[in-house]
Amino acid sequence: MLKISIVGGSGYGGGELLRLLLGHPEVEVCQVTSRSHLGEYVYQVHPNLRKRTQLTFCDPAQLEPVDLLYLALPHGEAQQKIEEYAALAPRIIDLSADFRLKDAAAYAQWYSHAHAAPAWLGKFVYGLPELHRVEMKDARYISGVGCNATAANLALLPLVQAGLIEKDAPVLIEIKVGSSESGAAGNAGSLHAERANVIRTFSPFGHRHTAEVLQESKLSRVSLTMTSVDLVRGALATAHAQVREGVALKDLWKAYRAAAAQNPFMRVVKESRGIYRVPEPKILAGSNYADIGFDLDESSGHVVSMCAIDNLMKGAAGSAVQCMNLMLGWEETCGLEFSGLHPC
Amino acid sequence: MLKISIVGGSGYGGGELLRLLLGHPEVEVCQVTSRSHLGEYVYQVHPNLRKRTQLTFCDPAQLEPVDLLYLALPHGEAQQKIEEYAALAPRIIDLSADFRLKDAAAYAQWYSHAHAAPAWLGKFVYGLPELHRVEMKDARYISGVGCNATAANLALLPLVQAGLIEKDAPVLIEIKVGSSESGAAGNAGSLHAERANVIRTFSPFGHRHTAEVLQESKLSRVSLTMTSVDLVRGALATAHAQVREGVALKDLWKAYRAAAAQNPFMRVVKESRGIYRVPEPKILAGSNYADIGFDLDESSGHVVSMCAIDNLMKGAAGSAVQCMNLMLGWEETCGLEFSGLHPC
Amino acid sequence: MLKISIVGGSGYGGGELLRLLLGHPEVEVCQVTSRSHLGEYVYQVHPNLRKRTQLTFCDPAQLEPVDLLYLALPHGEAQQKIEEYAALAPRIIDLSADFRLKDAAAYAQWYSHAHAAPAWLGKFVYGLPELHRVEMKDARYISGVGCNATAANLALLPLVQAGLIEKDAPVLIEIKVGSSESGAAGNAGSLHAERANVIRTFSPFGHRHTAEVLQESKLSRVSLTMTSVDLVRGALATAHAQVREGVALKDLWKAYRAAAAQNPFMRVVKESRGIYRVPEPKILAGSNYADIGFDLDESSGHVVSMCAIDNLMKGAAGSAVQCMNLMLGWEETCGLEFSGLHPC
Amino acid sequence: MLKISIVGGSGYGGGELLRLLLGHPEVEVCQVTSRSHLGEYVYQVHPNLRKRTQLTFCDPAQLEPVDLLYLALPHGEAQQKIEEYAALAPRIIDLSADFRLKDAAAYAQWYSHAHAAPAWLGKFVYGLPELHRVEMKDARYISGVGCNATAANLALLPLVQAGLIEKDAPVLIEIKVGSSESGAAGNAGSLHAERANVIRTFSPFGHRHTAEVLQESKLSRVSLTMTSVDLVRGALATAHAQVREGVALKDLWKAYRAAAAQNPFMRVVKESRGIYRVPEPKILAGSNYADIGFDLDESSGHVVSMCAIDNLMKGAAGSAVQCMNLMLGWEETCGLEFSGLHPC
Repeated sequence: MLKISIVGGSGYGGGELLRLLLGHPEVEVCQVTSRSHLGEYVYQVHPNLRKRTQLTFCDPAQLEPVDLLYLALPHGEAQQKIEEYAALAPRIIDLSADFRLKDAAAYAQWYSHAHAAPAWLGKFVYGLPELHRVEMKDARYISGVGCNATAANLALLPLVQAGLIEKDAPVLIEIKVGSSESGAAGNAGSLHAERANVIRTFSPFGHRHTAEVLQESKLSRVSLTMTSVDLVRGALATAHAQVREGVALKDLWKAYRAAAAQNPFMRVVKESRGIYRVPEPKILAGSNYADIGFDLDESSGHVVSMCAIDNLMKGAAGSAVQCMNLMLGWEETCGLEFSGLHPC
Repeated sequence: MLKISIVGGSGYGGGELLRLLLGHPEVEVCQVTSRSHLGEYVYQVHPNLRKRTQLTFCDPAQLEPVDLLYLALPHGEAQQKIEEYAALAPRIIDLSADFRLKDAAAYAQWYSHAHAAPAWLGKFVYGLPELHRVEMKDARYISGVGCNATAANLALLPLVQAGLIEKDAPVLIEIKVGSSESGAAGNAGSLHAERANVIRTFSPFGHRHTAEVLQESKLSRVSLTMTSVDLVRGALATAHAQVREGVALKDLWKAYRAAAAQNPFMRVVKESRGIYRVPEPKILAGSNYADIGFDLDESSGHVVSMCAIDNLMKGAAGSAVQCMNLMLGWEETCGLEFSGLHPC
Repeated sequence: MLKISIVGGSGYGGGELLRLLLGHPEVEVCQVTSRSHLGEYVYQVHPNLRKRTQLTFCDPAQLEPVDLLYLALPHGEAQQKIEEYAALAPRIIDLSADFRLKDAAAYAQWYSHAHAAPAWLGKFVYGLPELHRVEMKDARYISGVGCNATAANLALLPLVQAGLIEKDAPVLIEIKVGSSESGAAGNAGSLHAERANVIRTFSPFGHRHTAEVLQESKLSRVSLTMTSVDLVRGALATAHAQVREGVALKDLWKAYRAAAAQNPFMRVVKESRGIYRVPEPKILAGSNYADIGFDLDESSGHVVSMCAIDNLMKGAAGSAVQCMNLMLGWEETCGLEFSGLHPC
Repeated sequence: MLKISIVGGSGYGGGELLRLLLGHPEVEVCQVTSRSHLGEYVYQVHPNLRKRTQLTFCDPAQLEPVDLLYLALPHGEAQQKIEEYAALAPRIIDLSADFRLKDAAAYAQWYSHAHAAPAWLGKFVYGLPELHRVEMKDARYISGVGCNATAANLALLPLVQAGLIEKDAPVLIEIKVGSSESGAAGNAGSLHAERANVIRTFSPFGHRHTAEVLQESKLSRVSLTMTSVDLVRGALATAHAQVREGVALKDLWKAYRAAAAQNPFMRVVKESRGIYRVPEPKILAGSNYADIGFDLDESSGHVVSMCAIDNLMKGAAGSAVQCMNLMLGWEETCGLEFSGLHPC
């Protein structure tokens, strides 16, 4: 059994990670830290884990060496102490935004402050298995992924990998997201009476996750528009792009089917009947699937590509566990078997 | 008191119309028809109207002459009997899609069947007061508006009227909508257990309301993408366009403020703090406001324009009452005073 | 025009009060205070009031004398400065819990601290018009009502006034409530991601509003059970009591119809078909109605009485305006005409 | 591998059963029937199962012999053909209401028609493992459970088994439920625009599941009150009873802890801090847990006992799989490991 600890376990990402690791047959969770919930039972904060673990939250200062350390801290904290964490474990998977960007200048631009450990940026593999599966096999350090960036990157993946879209044309990605994206701390607008029933375009462009999409898609004219809707878990990216001259619907089918065939957590959803004809995040709650779909306006070349995920799973903890599986040579889907629910 | 009847009063649009007319100081509601709820009290179907009216639904065949007839029938029915209705009243306001398009060929293209009364198309003024206020003063026949078309048209209005955007560049409009858009009949996907929590892009392009946006905006490359979200009333249009060379944020401010000054139901929402910084449909439920907002990415010229409405009000019954007020020379806002709620 | 100011206008009760008063034909709103939003436009906090008022929040220390002062402060504050407020206006209507109970000992028991101005308790009329309409005509000081107490008191009113239930038998009242009851400040559990989808029985018995039900119903064995559900506005009280020997369904009909006939904001909802057969809070959002319904298990004498309200209207601001209308001899329904929406 | 088929797999109970069985290590799903979705892929109806199974719905007439047959038909159908089904498999687990009641007269009273196969009523074990674990080991036929009955029975279980409550006093059980209880067919009130935001007491007393509570609790004065709230999955039963003279809080603790110790899917939730202090159904979606909690008003002896479940899991398919595990001597929790989510 691989010994694992989680730094920052009281947030939503950390809690989801813990749920997955407690059910993973190859690992043993040793310690989970939380300063704000120190000494409390983990199940008092994550009530779904009652009767699953008797762990209590411990102080980060009490961390003992393990085989793999997960960092699930607020953005900006991991980079401050990365040397300390690296001394505790030979392998680190970080869920925060701290080690996602390769370029310290890009980091400074998008996050408005200089990176505290720029030398470490190059040591981390970007944590999206669908793009970096091979590198992960030899990796010791893997970053997390932005949930919105993941929905966007996976919506673009079949189009980019098959070279179907105009690289110079603008790509607009409208992302609709649930409230768990604001985290367990939330903000003034997170109060239920204010957040319920919203359709709130809180960021028309310039969202930080754009940086990850630019980096990973290799496209240069990508814009993300973020809209909150009434849902707890889930994100849907709807990407609008221009196909290259001559690209037809059958080319898209081929590209999407290939993507789904190569990636165990990708599924193509494009049905002509029934209720669930397009990717929809609600049925993915708790699952690691990324459902992708598309349509092409052949008269204009306007392609619409969609990707639905659970932002806490494929967009955070699920991908992180998938990365661990790859890093350690285990079955890629191990511990990630939950299919999601219907209805829900 | 102007005598009024409503043909088709058991649907959502008809019910909302009835609520407004019962509170309107200048009119008297004489008859309300419904075949499916014949003989029932109106308040049994629209429970908010209990203690407000003792009207029962009558048979359309029993309609008596009035001063103004509202038609709130399923799409396709009004055109079949428009001559009969015109014989009953000198003025008609129709909420359906039957008389919105000026061009019979366009109607046939978007609605997949020939129009049954093409000669009537030219007699109707398109029912959006913000675009046709002057013509309404002399009109006898006014059409309804598509709710999504209205959100889109009003998002575009300040940009188009001030000539700020590239007319040749594509305009993408992402519209997120609540479940009342499916009407009181609904469809398989309208069942609560299936419709709750959705982010469902049911139409990536090609929605019928596109025809109204093309006609009214005079733009030629407009595409609508429709996504259902978990809300009953409300629609938000997020329009993506390209500003003309040299257009700056201050030009946008000027255009939006001018639009709000000229139109009593338009409000500019663009705040730098607080929870409600952008237009949001939920606070508009029951009100006739169209809240508009915008932002400009000056580095790329990408402008994002938003318009939030209550689809049953500004997107249907509210605009229809506003049209009546203009047609009869009454105060434009008469009977439309409800401000919406906070919180909700 | 009666000059009015509101002390504490940034909370939900204060905002709703302001909405109503801005639409009331007999009053002029002079000042609205808020310490936390000092200097902000009222519409930045209550976005539904944009284009309705240019008022900004002022400091309570700047209050000027008016004809009537509304107090909408957090519980416990009004009693601290009641003398000061009374010096500013000959009439006061308080929305808080400070002056609802007649008995200082009961106050101390239920609120866990001694009342700061016990001599004032007797000067206030309890603010539920359905129970104290006559006294309000001569009143200068009127208290607010607990929203849950109001749902409970109105569910019991027909049964108690007609003497239909066993006064010695226990009366259980299960109340289901929306999130706006937690106020604009909220608590940890109010975060959308935690509060959404809940069925959370946060108080099995002993809720403070029980004191108001005991006082106003004159019953001695009343228990309230409070459950949060996923809704913003609205409360439903389901009261379980035992009818007296021989009481039949027709006696209940008579009592409920009489209550509705005597009270302009009461409606009996008991239909045998349709979707809305029982009282339901959602269609009351923004309205001042209290919808009541009932059923009797004749085999056991178990009567179930229901009352649905909008907690911010009939349960707070709406009743407060109704009280003002009675106090000043105006039409009881003045400014409270909004009927609520369907669908919503 | 045990060969299994499901009769009636397109409904919500059948779909959930299929999800569980596809992940169960000891069984193989051979056939799934559906007349309304004949020939469609199972994943077109239950989109969470995409990439999990290539099964299509077959005609019931094509069923082949298996080791165990699950019946998930609309109520009333299984009893018509029970002989035919019994000829196909030595073991049957039925999810419907057809074989839950032991007494044909009680069945006729609560279901308003004579039972079609009364001789079979005695052959079925009532499908709640927490009450009939021992009998299940030798059973060939096991009935389903009513979801509301299950929430009620498990709320009562610790009180009844420890003999803590007055058996002659009335027991009121208020149950709040999500929309999936109405099934995939739904009814007029199930339309999202009508069902969203509801607090709808659709049955004040007399619900059919009362019969199962009377039968299994052995109490004689039990009444169920049913209220729909805005949630898809989940039910919370809040039971109000009277403790016997002298019963104290510590006795309740002992009884509840004992119940949780004896039953792997029972958990006691009674915390003094945190957000999740009481049983709450939302965190149980997809899990088989029944969370129980309680409180005692020592001044009156009024005990409030709560039980939260996922109505499709512990209240239907989950209990059915648990029954199968017991029937076949497997680990009771096998295939039921999903813990539920937080947040959700």
